[in-house]
Order: sequence, then C-alpha cells, then structure tokens
Amino acid sequence: MESSTDLKTRDIRIHGLEGLPLVQPGDDLAGMLVRAIQNTGLAAGTGDVLLVTQKIVSKAEGRLVRLSEVTPSERAVELAQRVGKDPRKVEVILRESRRVLKAERPASTGIGVLICETRHGLVCANAGVDESNLSDPDTVLCLPADPDASAERIRSAVRAALGVDLAVIITDSFGRPWRMGLVNVAIGIAGGPALVDLRGSADYSGHPLSVTRIAVADELAAIAGLVMGKLELIPAALVRGWRFDGAPGRAADLIRPAAEDLFR
Amino acid sequence: MESSTDLKTRDIRIHGLEGLPLVQPGDDLAGMLVRAIQNTGLAAGTGDVLLVTQKIVSKAEGRLVRLSEVTPSERAVELAQRVGKDPRKVEVILRESRRVLKAERPASTGIGVLICETRHGLVCANAGVDESNLSDPDTVLCLPADPDASAERIRSAVRAALGVDLAVIITDSFGRPWRMGLVNVAIGIAGGPALVDLRGSADYSGHPLSVTRIAVADELAAIAGLVMGKLELIPAALVRGWRFDGAPGRAADLIRPAAEDLFR
Repeated sequence: MESSTDLKTRDIRIHGLEGLPLVQPGDDLAGMLVRAIQNTGLAAGTGDVLLVTQKIVSKAEGRLVRLSEVTPSERAVELAQRVGKDPRKVEVILRESRRVLKAERPASTGIGVLICETRHGLVCANAGVDESNLSDPDTVLCLPADPDASAERIRSAVRAALGVDLAVIITDSFGRPWRMGLVNVAIGIAGGPALVDLRGSADYSGHPLSVTRIAVADELAAIAGLVMGKLELIPAALVRGWRFDGAPGRAADLIRPAAEDLFR
Repeated sequence: MESSTDLKTRDIRIHGLEGLPLVQPGDDLAGMLVRAIQNTGLAAGTGDVLLVTQKIVSKAEGRLVRLSEVTPSERAVELAQRVGKDPRKVEVILRESRRVLKAERPASTGIGVLICETRHGLVCANAGVDESNLSDPDTVLCLPADPDASAERIRSAVRAALGVDLAVIITDSFGRPWRMGLVNVAIGIAGGPALVDLRGSADYSGHPLSVTRIAVADELAAIAGLVMGKLELIPAALVRGWRFDGAPGRAADLIRPAAEDLFR
C-alpha cells in the first residue's frame, strides 16, 4: 500500500553518469560508479535511484564465454541451423535458458532469434546473450547470474563510500509483444520497490482501484534508455527526486505467473 | 538514423504539472495545459516533451458514454456473463474494439477482463474503456478517437500560445505480457519520434547494430507513471532536456505487425 507515492513526486531529474571507463572483467564496478556519482557534483541522497545497464555489470562479473571453448549440443546445432546462428552461441543461449519459446528467422530482418525464458524467469531475445559492445569476436556476454545480488552489492558499496541509501536497478533493453521497439526494463533491484500497489486506495471520485499495481522499477528503468542510448557510452544514470514508500522489491516480483497472464 | 541522440542527452528533468483543474467535457484542455506550463515558472523550450494522460484528453473531448443509453448486443450479453461485467459496459468495449483476444475472470482478482485490440490497433484491457475517476457511476470513458490528432491539437495550441515546438505524447497505463504491473505507454504522438532507429550505426567495438530500434515514445511515456501516479491528480508532465533528431512519429509506429511479432 504505497499510494502516497502519488502525492510526493513532482520533480525528477535524471543524470547520465559520464566518464565511466570501459569496464573489464574483475573491475571494481561499484567503485567506478561511486567516483562517477561524485564527479557529477550532485550530493546523491537517500531515495535516489542508480540505474546501471546489465552489460557493464556482466562484464565486471566476468560473465563472458569464449565461443572457441564451447561444444554445441545436438539440439544447439539443430536450432542454429533453423535460425542461422552460430551453434556455439546457441549452446550458450540454451545453457542460460529454462526453455525456448520460439526459434525463428524473420524475413524482415534475416536475423535469427531465439525467444527464451531465462533461468531468472525473464522472457527475452537470445536469453540476453549478446555479442555487441565486445572487442573480441570470439566472446559473448551473458546476463548476471543473480542480478538482484549484483544490485545489492553495488548498493552496499555506494552506501559504504557515500553514506547514502540509494536504490539500485540493473536494466536491460527488451523487445515486447504487441509493440515495436526495445524498452529498458528492470532485471535486478535492490533497495527500491518493484511494484507500487494502489489496490485498496480510491480514486478522487471514491471508486476503489482494484487491480492497479504500477511497475515502477520498469518505469524507472525505461528512463535509462533515454539517457544511455544503445551505444552505451553512458551505461549508468542517477535518478533524483523520486520518492517511494514500502518494502524493497526483487526482480522476480515483475515476472508474471503464467496463470495470471491474460496477455500471452 | 537518429543515433546522435546517444550523444546529446545527459540531463533530463520531469515536472509534474500541478494545479490543473478537474477536466470536464468541452473544456479547453490545451489552454489549461498552457497555463499549467506557465505556472511552473520554467521556460518551456523547443524539444521539450509534454506528457498528457489519455483520461483528461478523453474527458475534454467528451468521450463519455452513458450506460443507461446503451443497449447490449447478444454477444455483449454472452461475454458479460462469462466475465461478470455489466453487459452495457461490454457493449461499449466491443464498439471500441477490432477484436477480443481473451475474455476471462481470473481467480486471483475475481475481476473480469477483456483483452482487446482497439480500433487504433492497441492491445489492452477492456479496450481502454474505464469507469474510474468519473463522478457519475452511469458513465464510462473511452480512449480518444484519434490520439495522434489529439496530441497535434495540443501541440498546435501550445505553439500558438507559448511560441515553442513541444513534442506531445498522450499516455495510458497498460498491462503487459510476461511482466507484472502496469506501465505507461504512448498512445498518441505529435512532434516527436516514436522510435529511434540505430540500425546501420555501430557500437563502440565496430559491431553493426542490426535490430536496434528504441521505443523512445514509450520510454518517455513511462516517466509519466512516476510523476502522475494512478490517482491522476497530476495528469500531465513536462520533460525537459531530452533531445532527438529525426522525423516525427505516430502512435501506429509502435504497433508491431503480427508477422514481426515473435513474442506473441
């Protein structure tokens, strides 16, 4: 019941964090983010939200796989033929997935895609396995193993260094059913809510709001897409002025159980 | 090819527009919005984005239907029984829809829902027909007939009054497949892009970005959810500092053709 969010937020600022070095495996990403926040000259405050793209989190955590070291399974070879992808990359995708929902090569792009449910429960293209923004063509990058834990590690390090309780959201850009284009969504959360639940509150005419849960973590993540862009020279952003009540959420709170999903 | 967006935006501000009166059918909504922008004391500038919730647009445009004047069709009666809704409301929903994708009454909420494709091509609950935030229990509110045209009218009026070229986005909160919670999306656009197309540009390692279109209008609309909330005492917001190139888009640009939709 965090409906008071409605009455608190009137002015939000989003700052893309500049000057982050290119992240390498083993880098102290939290330390880099702390310095980038300090460099903004803004006093980050409790309740602010730090948005971090999964790509730099994955890189810092060494979630790289060398394709030359991957032996594709029979299933990977079969799927790879169907969609025209490197069988070794498909093998990595399968290892990251609970199941493959679709495997197609749309005529519109000619680029094969596996729509997968990842081990985290996320539904996205290629289970988030990506070869862009990598300097070595032999490597692909996987999503963080536990993005909530990654967010919590960054949150703790920021608190230790700066003495403020930020929320941290790890973002990734996902395609969507029904609608064109990618949007950034929250795949990891620490210290902030996933959903704000207005059930039980009333609108200004007195009607009860019965099914109104707002996916605030996804709305916050969407902002990241506006300042980061896709070229990811700005892979993190600070949101100031958004206020929330209520218990911290987890990325899993945003995953809709199949039984409740009328949109599928 | 508007990839230069990547290099322009570093600092975005979002202001919820306070002091808007409750909107009634026939009200000069654009004039109200102009005064609300003036009241912020901010000099709105070319390239800023005005976000307006569909509800006040629909109200100003008189998109109210009196249920006492609606005679439900046989199909409406049958669907209404199935999902436990007022047959007259179901009739209004059917009139607003091209087709009904699902009609269910989930045990989790007990509240019947029709997932519809609206006449605009939007896929959402109850074709956007809503009874909340209305003072008269006999009325329901439909989406604007042509939200792009509604946005353009507001844009023209703002330009005439303030001499600035804002983009205008009309927003609504939608449920989504796979993910919990509502997010605000763009259902009407004027003077700004729907998608920013990065295809043909390269990431910083030189890899071509092949399928990267960002749904910037939806990302901008998502911000609205953070300042407006659902109680809609703040039904409009001004986004300052986001910069874009490229041709203005339309809401239809965000509707994914079935043939391209691997996520369905």
